[in-house]
Amino acid sequence: MEHKAVNALFLGPKSENYPVFKQMLGYMMDDYAEWRRGFHPDDPLVITPSDQEEEGFQATVREMRQVLVELAGLLQMTSVPWFSPRYLGHMTADTLMAANLGYMLALLYNQNNVAYEGSPGTTGLELETGRQLAAMMGYDPAQSWGHLTAGGTIANYEGLWLARNLKSIPHALRRTVPELVAGLDDWALWNLSPASILDLLEQAKQMGCFEQVRAHSVRGQGIPAGGLGKVLVPQSKHYSWVKAMDLLGLGQERLIQIPVQDDYRMDLESLRVTLEALLESHTPVLAVVAVVGTTEEGAVDGVYRIADLRDEFSKRGLSFWLHIDAAYGGYVRSAFLDAQGSFMDLPQMREELQESLSDWPSDHIYQAYQAISRSDSITVDPHKLGYIPYPAGAFLARDRRVVELISYFAAYVFEEAEDNPQLLGSYILEGSKPGAAAAAVWVAHRLVPLHWGGYGRLIGSSIGGARQFYRSLLEQPLFSANGRNYLVLPLTEPDLNIVVYAFNEQGNADLEVMNALNQRICEHGFRPTGPLLSSDFILSKTSLEQKEYRDTPLAFLRRFGIPEEEWRRVGSVFVLRSCVVTPFLARGATFETYWGTFRQSMTKALETL
Amino acid sequence: MEHKAVNALFLGPKSENYPVFKQMLGYMMDDYAEWRRGFHPDDPLVITPSDQEEEGFQATVREMRQVLVELAGLLQMTSVPWFSPRYLGHMTADTLMAANLGYMLALLYNQNNVAYEGSPGTTGLELETGRQLAAMMGYDPAQSWGHLTAGGTIANYEGLWLARNLKSIPHALRRTVPELVAGLDDWALWNLSPASILDLLEQAKQMGCFEQVRAHSVRGQGIPAGGLGKVLVPQSKHYSWVKAMDLLGLGQERLIQIPVQDDYRMDLESLRVTLEALLESHTPVLAVVAVVGTTEEGAVDGVYRIADLRDEFSKRGLSFWLHIDAAYGGYVRSAFLDAQGSFMDLPQMREELQESLSDWPSDHIYQAYQAISRSDSITVDPHKLGYIPYPAGAFLARDRRVVELISYFAAYVFEEAEDNPQLLGSYILEGSKPGAAAAAVWVAHRLVPLHWGGYGRLIGSSIGGARQFYRSLLEQPLFSANGRNYLVLPLTEPDLNIVVYAFNEQGNADLEVMNALNQRICEHGFRPTGPLLSSDFILSKTSLEQKEYRDTPLAFLRRFGIPEEEWRRVGSVFVLRSCVVTPFLARGATFETYWGTFRQSMTKALETL
Repeated sequence: MEHKAVNALFLGPKSENYPVFKQMLGYMMDDYAEWRRGFHPDDPLVITPSDQEEEGFQATVREMRQVLVELAGLLQMTSVPWFSPRYLGHMTADTLMAANLGYMLALLYNQNNVAYEGSPGTTGLELETGRQLAAMMGYDPAQSWGHLTAGGTIANYEGLWLARNLKSIPHALRRTVPELVAGLDDWALWNLSPASILDLLEQAKQMGCFEQVRAHSVRGQGIPAGGLGKVLVPQSKHYSWVKAMDLLGLGQERLIQIPVQDDYRMDLESLRVTLEALLESHTPVLAVVAVVGTTEEGAVDGVYRIADLRDEFSKRGLSFWLHIDAAYGGYVRSAFLDAQGSFMDLPQMREELQESLSDWPSDHIYQAYQAISRSDSITVDPHKLGYIPYPAGAFLARDRRVVELISYFAAYVFEEAEDNPQLLGSYILEGSKPGAAAAAVWVAHRLVPLHWGGYGRLIGSSIGGARQFYRSLLEQPLFSANGRNYLVLPLTEPDLNIVVYAFNEQGNADLEVMNALNQRICEHGFRPTGPLLSSDFILSKTSLEQKEYRDTPLAFLRRFGIPEEEWRRVGSVFVLRSCVVTPFLARGATFETYWGTFRQSMTKALETL
Repeated sequence: MEHKAVNALFLGPKSENYPVFKQMLGYMMDDYAEWRRGFHPDDPLVITPSDQEEEGFQATVREMRQVLVELAGLLQMTSVPWFSPRYLGHMTADTLMAANLGYMLALLYNQNNVAYEGSPGTTGLELETGRQLAAMMGYDPAQSWGHLTAGGTIANYEGLWLARNLKSIPHALRRTVPELVAGLDDWALWNLSPASILDLLEQAKQMGCFEQVRAHSVRGQGIPAGGLGKVLVPQSKHYSWVKAMDLLGLGQERLIQIPVQDDYRMDLESLRVTLEALLESHTPVLAVVAVVGTTEEGAVDGVYRIADLRDEFSKRGLSFWLHIDAAYGGYVRSAFLDAQGSFMDLPQMREELQESLSDWPSDHIYQAYQAISRSDSITVDPHKLGYIPYPAGAFLARDRRVVELISYFAAYVFEEAEDNPQLLGSYILEGSKPGAAAAAVWVAHRLVPLHWGGYGRLIGSSIGGARQFYRSLLEQPLFSANGRNYLVLPLTEPDLNIVVYAFNEQGNADLEVMNALNQRICEHGFRPTGPLLSSDFILSKTSLEQKEYRDTPLAFLRRFGIPEEEWRRVGSVFVLRSCVVTPFLARGATFETYWGTFRQSMTKALETL
């Protein structure tokens, strides 16, 4: 498959491609300035040359320069240098040159995608990127709905908002057009499938009762006494799910956290047991959230088995909304698609990947990605593995009719003459939103297609780098400093490109001592204050707490020789976290350089203790 | 008072200041490229000159150019030219050169303000701009809380979210630490003032019961049966308030819309009657929202009288949260401040304003702006009258302790060593957010201070232009075309810088005919599809509907000779809307040019009918 030269996509850690960037930027800025002049070219100048010679004008220009130089200095001194292969902190790396340039140009146009009148061009770009992302996830672009958001948190809210409102529709139907749900008891009404509720809502609309139904749903009446059921998430969930339960008025007590296994994927036996108990006690389930790429470990939940459980329980009378939080891992699905956008079979995929990724994906990862299309809605962030600057999240829903559940308008119609809604802000959570973000995503998707030849290979490089890092840790687990030996072990084999690991001095069985060691290593690498540019390596950190993860981290501690009593006593293990989002570490020579530097830097850190 | 040269702040309708812009951009880009090289300068090149010579590399660069040129063309053909004085459509005009440049530079740094680790510099800039905006509104910067949002819609949600959670605290206290609310009956618990609830919460915290209280509030339990009271907004509210009632689980039926007067300001007699009735029936009031700058008319509600009513009803046992939706009009408060940030007395203000604005502000406007500081929270959008590119909204709260009501963390502490929270995303609605937006706002506030000498005078120019437009309509209300005479009348005297008006053929008493006329004029000015650059003038439009505005538009129609029966029959009047956000129309010569062009263009439109 043809593919893009990854080297040509980024400015580069040393600004290697700056001449290309600057030339293109100059062209685009000139083009923009010409555009302004071309609007009624016979209109007179508003700012005249003699205005520009006035002392007041000059003084203001001087002040502007001064303020901008101050900003430039401040950013230099305080910014996180995620462009470098030395930065392995959070889920950030260099962003695509094309996306940055597209954003910068569109920023000057400053269109507002909240309403078509404020963005006749960029609203279209936004909905086009929504369709592209929906297709990447295996949704039917003609039936689904997708748009950009300020970020994954907002997309998660929107998913749960839709699910919440949908859950309340059957009871609203019973109160307004009971003939549509005749013969269904309370429990059956709680457990209609998403598709059948949307069908019923369409019938209600044809009967002219749509507004009445909505007014009797949670949208009009507020959360009913007793709530709208439980929401199930893995313990590894992003904290926005906890915020969502509060924001949406559902109450955090109705969030059930399913434990994770030793590999930090949702424990599906535990999910089954929980669902059985809820079915038994006739407690409605509003939604189940599966995570594709956990924030801390990059772990991928078994979406295929969760979707199977959904089908099984649905048949047994317990139905729920299935949302995939793929804010982080979503773009990885491009690696599974051929140039026509079809999900490749595993042999074909292994053939495509063989030169870059010999031992990925596992069957689990393959099946999990394949099953994403069996969900009702998805969160995916272009500003994470889309290599696009902030702000760019996205929300996708399998069935576009869901927008009617939240739309501001009395009777929802996508205006017939147009493919674009006249007032996007009335169908989504947000209001004003930058057209520039849509332009950046659109440009990125044009240049780097959402299949193996484009994003697949790019993200594949980052996964390749992470795997090399993981293997190198396994192969050289011993560090020596000041005559002491230290063992480093990875937490798990990474599902994607996040490697979590920790150091311990050989023979140490005290968890507090181990935690302090890793904390000091981290501080050596990442200084929370002062110039970051003096750091050798930038890592991130996290604490795996018993109250969040129960006893999952115990297996990891045992490999270090830390006994169970220590875990019971301390209840928390401090770990280091390297997100290998940069595509550059996959190259042999570059990896060797940085791996060498990493070892030196860690050794230096250990020596200073 | 010293002031900035407005001419030097913008690129200009003809790109007049492009040389200044381009030079500064070049400097900043070079500076940024150097920054990358300066991080471990001894690290080897990752992209080598021989990589760059490869055909694959060159091909990808060529494709990038092609895609970007395509974007540039698309934006040229489809974008709304709000930079021109011919654009009087929505609340947009040219944005500050400094803000655009600041954004473009900071975009490359791509810091994420969700967490301090991802933005050690720009998180500080965001909170600094929050304090500046709080001070502009008359809040005590040391006690208040402010941060940027993706837009005003999100800020409105956040205000109502906080108010909602606060309202539920007293009952949560009764369930967990009843001694703190001993002797208070149910009605008294619903009506504790915001400040006293926050004081009680602090006591609960000192007693170690904070988490228990929050878990028993709406945050933990969800919306209680019966809800949390009514929310009162004027009928002129932005539609995000209707969305907010749905999103937050309160239910749209609990939103009470207070009618507006002939001047499109909230009818305060009606507000009083409503509050009396709610007090009488012991129905709690969750919040009252006052609008400072309505979306359609730019009308400013009588905040001073609303704040008085709040005080009065609070004494009588009915307490509520007061939110000011100043998304549009908020920055206008800078015009009332002297260089020290003090709210000027009216004679001092008139003296400062006399050369630019002889008949503004009225006593009503003056008192309304003064009273903004008596609110609990405020929405204000830098991307509206801050002349800053999208996305930049802001949320402000008078008492920073409110963040504890929604914060993710178990026990909220602003980390002691730092002025910045380590995880901003845990105290606000959003998650990931661009540090670049904060940089843009910060640069703008540095260059154009938030007082009369900065933003005041800049926005004053736009108000001056609007008033001149309004007076010109009053002075030359007759247009002739094809031997017919048309009358144009403004809806009201503008409070800020939005002028709403309509045409009617002299002698016509048919409202449908009048509506069709204005619709055609609008279409002539604004084409929803096709290149906008051929438009003579770009206006926006709105329909004043009976179901939204009750009979308020009737007075306007009577001035046109349209009888009441017609209003009863048609129920809607189509009006034109000119937002004079551009500061350039205030200049005598420029105004005359564009007023002449406007009359010609309208006459041309009338001739084509």
